This record gives sequence, C-alpha cells and structure tokens, in this order.
Amino acid sequence: MKVVISNHTQEIEAIIKTGRVLTNESDRFSYSFDASFGTYLPDLVVQTKSTEELVSLVKFANREKIPLYPRGQATSLSGGPLSVKGGIILDLSVMNDVLEIHEEDLVAVVSPGVLTANIHKAAEEKGFMYPPDPSSSHVSTIGGNLAENSGGPRGLKYGVTKDYVIGLEVITPEGELINTGGRTVKNVTGYDLTKLIVGSEGTLGIITKAVLRLIPKPKATATMMVIFDSLVDAGRAISKILSAGIFPSKMELMDQASIVAVEQFEPLGLPVDAAALILIEMDGHPLALQEEVSQAAELCRTVGARDVRIPKDKAEEAELWRARKLVSPAIVRIKPTKISEDATVPRSKIPEMCERLQEIRDKYGVHLVVFGHAGDGNLHPNIICDKTDHEEMSRVELAVSEIFTAAIELGGTLSGEHGIGIMKAPFMEMELGAAGLDMMKRIKDVWDPNNIMNPGKIFPEPGQKMELS
Amino acid sequence: MKVVISNHTQEIEAIIKTGRVLTNESDRFSYSFDASFGTYLPDLVVQTKSTEELVSLVKFANREKIPLYPRGQATSLSGGPLSVKGGIILDLSVMNDVLEIHEEDLVAVVSPGVLTANIHKAAEEKGFMYPPDPSSSHVSTIGGNLAENSGGPRGLKYGVTKDYVIGLEVITPEGELINTGGRTVKNVTGYDLTKLIVGSEGTLGIITKAVLRLIPKPKATATMMVIFDSLVDAGRAISKILSAGIFPSKMELMDQASIVAVEQFEPLGLPVDAAALILIEMDGHPLALQEEVSQAAELCRTVGARDVRIPKDKAEEAELWRARKLVSPAIVRIKPTKISEDATVPRSKIPEMCERLQEIRDKYGVHLVVFGHAGDGNLHPNIICDKTDHEEMSRVELAVSEIFTAAIELGGTLSGEHGIGIMKAPFMEMELGAAGLDMMKRIKDVWDPNNIMNPGKIFPEPGQKMELS
Repeated sequence: MKVVISNHTQEIEAIIKTGRVLTNESDRFSYSFDASFGTYLPDLVVQTKSTEELVSLVKFANREKIPLYPRGQATSLSGGPLSVKGGIILDLSVMNDVLEIHEEDLVAVVSPGVLTANIHKAAEEKGFMYPPDPSSSHVSTIGGNLAENSGGPRGLKYGVTKDYVIGLEVITPEGELINTGGRTVKNVTGYDLTKLIVGSEGTLGIITKAVLRLIPKPKATATMMVIFDSLVDAGRAISKILSAGIFPSKMELMDQASIVAVEQFEPLGLPVDAAALILIEMDGHPLALQEEVSQAAELCRTVGARDVRIPKDKAEEAELWRARKLVSPAIVRIKPTKISEDATVPRSKIPEMCERLQEIRDKYGVHLVVFGHAGDGNLHPNIICDKTDHEEMSRVELAVSEIFTAAIELGGTLSGEHGIGIMKAPFMEMELGAAGLDMMKRIKDVWDPNNIMNPGKIFPEPGQKMELS
Repeated sequence: MKVVISNHTQEIEAIIKTGRVLTNESDRFSYSFDASFGTYLPDLVVQTKSTEELVSLVKFANREKIPLYPRGQATSLSGGPLSVKGGIILDLSVMNDVLEIHEEDLVAVVSPGVLTANIHKAAEEKGFMYPPDPSSSHVSTIGGNLAENSGGPRGLKYGVTKDYVIGLEVITPEGELINTGGRTVKNVTGYDLTKLIVGSEGTLGIITKAVLRLIPKPKATATMMVIFDSLVDAGRAISKILSAGIFPSKMELMDQASIVAVEQFEPLGLPVDAAALILIEMDGHPLALQEEVSQAAELCRTVGARDVRIPKDKAEEAELWRARKLVSPAIVRIKPTKISEDATVPRSKIPEMCERLQEIRDKYGVHLVVFGHAGDGNLHPNIICDKTDHEEMSRVELAVSEIFTAAIELGGTLSGEHGIGIMKAPFMEMELGAAGLDMMKRIKDVWDPNNIMNPGKIFPEPGQKMELS
C-alpha cells in the first residue's frame, strides 16, 4: 500500500533543518527523469548537506515505509535514480564539499556530490591519477559512479570504479551510519561490504563519503588510430598487442556505422568504407611509449591493418580522439531517441558479438550503431529510434532483448557499466539463474527489510517485462 | 548440540563415490592444525575431485547440521581451515586438475587445489602475469588465497587476490551450485557476489572454480636496497618516490631487529646498526626502469638515506632479496613459536606504528620483529616466543591485543592479508562497530541458516577472548 507522503511533509521538514524540502510540482518534475527511458514524478525531493539529517530521515522513512531514491546528476542510462514506486528523492549532488587529496596515503576522500572530473583534476594537480573515467565524468557525480560501479575506456588496464574504492561511510536502510573498509589497500577484516555496496545501485544504503585509491600519474601518453577492413582482424590485432607485453590504457572500437555517422556529422577524413577502426592510447614512460607505439603499429600491420595513423603532435592527437567523442552527438542527429546498451562479452568474442549484432539489426530493421571499449569487451550497441513511434519501439524492444540473449550466450553479461536499473531487471534470471539471483535477493531482504532503498531496481517483479513501446 | 558424525559415516561414504573418506585418527590428525596456533581434530576428512559429490555432501550436511571446513594446503596464519566445532574437513587440495590459460580473454580458469605458483608459471609461459604473490605461493593453493583474499608484496601497485578474480563457481551453504561474475572485467549485473565470497574465509560457500584476470607480463624488473638511520626518513623516501610518478612493484621494509636476526643467521653484509632498510623492486620497460632507478636513488639520498645499493647483475639482485627471504627462517631460530601478525595502517602512519610497536615490545618484554610491505602499510609484527611458557604467552596475549588496538587507533585494520579466523574474531567489533559487524552477520545468517560453513570463524562468540596461553 502506497504511503501518502503529503501527510508527512511537516515531519520531514522538521528533520531537514538545514536543507530544503521541495514539494511543488515544477521542482519535482525536474527530478522525474534521468538519461535513460521513462518518467516518474517523485512525491518529494530532499536536499541536504547534513549526514545527520539524512540518518534521521532514513530512520523515519524506514519506520513509515517510504521509498528513498539517492540521486546525483542523473546521468544514469539504466534508470538508477528514478522514483518508480513514488516516495522521496534524495538529491545528493548538494553534498559536494569534501574533496581531500591525502598525498602520503595515496587516497582521496570525497563526498558523494563531487563531480568525478573534479577528482581527476585535484589528483592530477598533486601528480596522481584517479583512473576510472566514465564518459560522463564531466557531469556525473562520484556518488552515482559508486552506486553504478561506473567503467569507461580504461577498464582493461586500470579496472573500474570498484577497483579504486577502499572505504565508505554508508547509511544503512535502517538508518545506522557505518564505516566499511578504510584507508588501506589491504583489508581482510570480515566481509568486503565496500565492494558489495559499490555497484548495488543505491539499493543497500546511502553513500555519504568514500575513500578512493590514487596511483602515480603516468608520465606520458601516446595515441594511434588503426583502420581495418575486417572486425576479426581488429580483434586479432588487440590480442597481438597484449601478448607482446604492451598494455594500452584505452582501446576504443568504432564500427562502420559509427564511422559513417561521425563523418556525415563532421568530415574528419575517416575511411567510411572501413569495417572498423580502433583508437589506442598507451601511457607510461616516454621512452617506453616510443618503442611500444612502433611495435604495436608493426603488429597491427602484420595482422592486416589497412592503415595506421600516428599523430605528430598533441593537436593531431586531439583530432583523432575527436572522432570517438563525436559518435554520440552524431548518432542522435539521425533520430531523437537513443537506447544505449552496454552488453559486454569476453574480449575474444567481440567479432562474433559484432556479427550477432548485425543479424539483429537486419532482422528487426533497426538503426544500430556499435562502438565501445574493445579492450575489455564492453561494447555499446546503440539503437537510434523515435520513442513516439510505437511500431518502431516494439521492434526495438525485441532487438534489445536479443542483444541481451546474445551477450549471455557468448559468455558475457547484461551490463558492463551502466547498471541493471529497471530496463534490464527482467533479464536477471537469464544470466544468474534462479539460485544466483536468490542469493543476491537474500542480502537485499535482510539489509532492507522494508524495501525502502531504491525499490523497483535490479530485482525483477513477478512477470515483469521490458517496456519501451 | 553436536552431531555425532560416526553415525553418518556410511551415508557420507555413499555420497563420496569417487573420492576418499578418512576416518582413522592418524589420518585425521594430519588435518588438525594449520600454520597458526591451536589444534582441533576433525571427525572426518573428505577428499574428492567431484563437484557433484561435494554438492550432495553439502546438501546432506546442511540437512544434518554438520559443520564443513574447506581446506587447501593449510598455510593459513589465522586458523582458517581449523575444525573448531568438529565436523568434516573438505580437503580441496585434491581438486587440482583445472589450470587453463585463455590468452584471447586474458584470463586463467582454475580449480581450487592448484598451487598459486603454478598459476604464475603457466601465465608467464604465455607472456602474462598473475600479480598476487603471497609469500606462501609455492605451497599454498589458489582456493586458500581466494578464501583469505591473500595479499603479498605487490599490493601497492597491483592490489590483492580479489582484484584479479572476476568469476567463481560456488557451492552455497545449502548446496546450490551458482556462478558469480564471469569472464569479463566489467560486470555490473546485480550485487558483486564474487568479491563478497573472496575473503569470506570459507564461511559463505565452497569455491570450486575461479576465473582470474591476467595482465601482460612487464618486460623487466630492477631492484635496489636503501638503508636508513631513521624510520621516518624511510617513510619520507617512499612518499617521494610515489609523488615523482614512480610506482614500484614492491617496497619491503625490514626493521633493525629483522636485519640483526638475518645477519646473525647468515652474514650477508647487512648494516646491523641501521634503523631500517627498504628493498624496492620496479617493473616495466627496461629503458624506463634505468631512468627510474637513478631517479629513485637520488630521491632517497635527498631525504637522508645512508646508503643505496643497486645490484650490477641478476646474481647480486638475488643476493639482496635473500635478506628479505631469510627473515622468517632467521627469527624462528630465536624461539620456537612465531605469532605472525598483519596489522595494517595507512602508509603515512608506518613510522608512528613502528614507534607504537617498540613501546609495546618494551612494555611487555616480548621479542618483537617488524618487517613487511611498506608500500601498502601492511606490516608484519612477529612475536617470537615459546608456546609452552605460559607466563610468556600471557604477556604475548596482551602485546598482540595492544598491537590490534594501535593499528585501529591509527586508522588501520586488524588484518591486511592473513584473515580474521579465530584469533582476531574477539576484536572485530572494535574495528567495525556493532552496526557494521551486524550487517556482515546478517549476510552470514541468511546465506547459511544452519551455520555449517566454517563455523567459529570471523564472528566472535559472546564473551569470546583471545587465548594463547
């Protein structure tokens, strides 16, 4: 039974002494959507910088069984912050005051509302690097990155957000403030609650502070663009490079549809007849890079690369990366709705996955563009469509569903970095099996007995199906 | 109420068709201890290579409420595999058949009984590296490393076991066979059960297979030994190196007591009047290494290093590392019992922790030697004693307890890499608080309602105290 929040507004306002409680519809409307699909109006929005007030609010919400939805900048592509069951959105983007770099301990301590790009900047100023670099890092908050365990192009060499989180301050769903992990890279004191909470999409508590591991900043970077007439050759080139002891920081793939879309959007001299191109970034010591770039170029040529472009200076390098950056703006020019998936497969299966994607494209007559992080198998099949066209959207629904099936059949996963949220929940059992899903659900149930923390996410409801049309 | 296992021997033998069921006392005795403290005779030992048989056995044990203790080579320093509540030890060291290197996917697939050193070897033969390298890797199984989330000297640069596990096959405490994660570095499909199970010390299930992430093998390594008249200078040297963008793969600290013990054991020309020495290993491209070694040496000298020794060839390099390798054999010559702790502090607190350790040594008159992984704050305070001397052991008890308190007061953790097991369980609440410990215990209770998986570990029993005397 749904709780009528308006009966509780005064009590909530009494708890949120230093912050704001937004009740009017126009304010709430701006919290009703994220970067994914669907619109859900919250009953109330709370903004506060005070952890103590949040603790009291969670205790109150738990007692009254009111759903809570932590939210950062709402760049989620899986519906993470949407208030699908009504209730209160917690706007944590206002918690942006803490950004400390502790050089001696090689850690950053941050509050959830800090923009990820600001962490990059603060670390680099001191000669360090915070490696996770999701494409949204200039607009997304670290709190959102933590909730979703964000990835990005550096996954192969540097791992993902989770690999850099060593401690958290968390409000449990019953309103207890706990600390997990700490400031040490090594910690085996009991279960790893830190890595359980990171990536749990806000369903296990509210992160109010995080300790992030930093590394020394690599001394230099180098870029190359390699063009292929066949996707299989591109896959072989990547393997050759890795087997030679070269460990690129980024290996970004663009398929022919992406290349064509970008070239039509802004002519950059990309080869529109190529099957694929890979943009490679290496980092490390300048002397090593020089040698490794030549070696990698040679390896690519031996497996049949059509062309290897090595920029002469930083300006030419920026030009090459511009091609990759323009994919998203270019494709949304084609049609207004972009369904951005992140089905991920073992790296060796990329060519096969690309073939499966082309079959799906042709079978359902959808406009499919594929690009993404080739080094770690994390592809981004994007379907470009128009959400007001119900006939098209029902074909898109079927195509997306088959993309998920293909990824799992190839030994991959539903989601590499966007999260399950609402759209992928119906497919969870297909990947995990009933027993695997049950073990996850048990944790949710015993941590959040009243199901108030971000309900409606990750776990499918009986008979739930994906709905886009 | 304790189950009388002998009533069930026939049923267990019927389940373990292809393996062995050991019942006689001399067989069981060899399973009654590990590398820690204490002896507990199991009622039964089971050896089988069959996952199906283990699944049936777990179902049976769960129904009959019989404790199960997974065990590898029993190199645990925290009592991980000890059968403290009676019941059945599962000797998983026999599950050593699977060791596959999948070059294209940059992963190894292994069964739990494989020795960690064999994984290193298999990976290196193909040009790859499995970075986690606990000191016991030549004798310990990967299953034990997974259960305890083993660390080792490469923690700072390369992280720990958990950072390289991307998929598991696990038998749950109720006998369901589940798969967690998979073969992709990126996977955000639901909660991260993989990283919950790794490091859970066998309390959440039995790992029957694991997918490990590999990386390209660094092209070369270089070593240097740096000698200091003050621990604070040693700490400053480490910080200077990291801030200069140099990221050593190992930074091993030996305090004066360790230096003296080794030099008395085997004269290697170590400076017995030095406060500390650090052994540094760097890895990467040879050209980069050459420059970084000179730069690091210069940085160490600027902060007051007394001497920097750079080996001229591989033989001299091996000689330097021999000093570190001899610490353990050298100190057990002094007295027969070695209590090896792994209290870990934020790196900046190493000098302060060393001072606290000296105070504790003097206060309780114990023989304390400190060495360990300085880069990641993971010290190994070892107390050398004689377990038959009750008066001494009661002083050791107090000293160990104060070591834990000091680590936590300095923002560190009870255990960096050895696990909680039985000895550290009474101190869990001191680090985690009641609420934090409760959130862990909830997971244990809901995953293992009959408390059959490795009972008596991690979670303290009411009123439980450390007992060494």
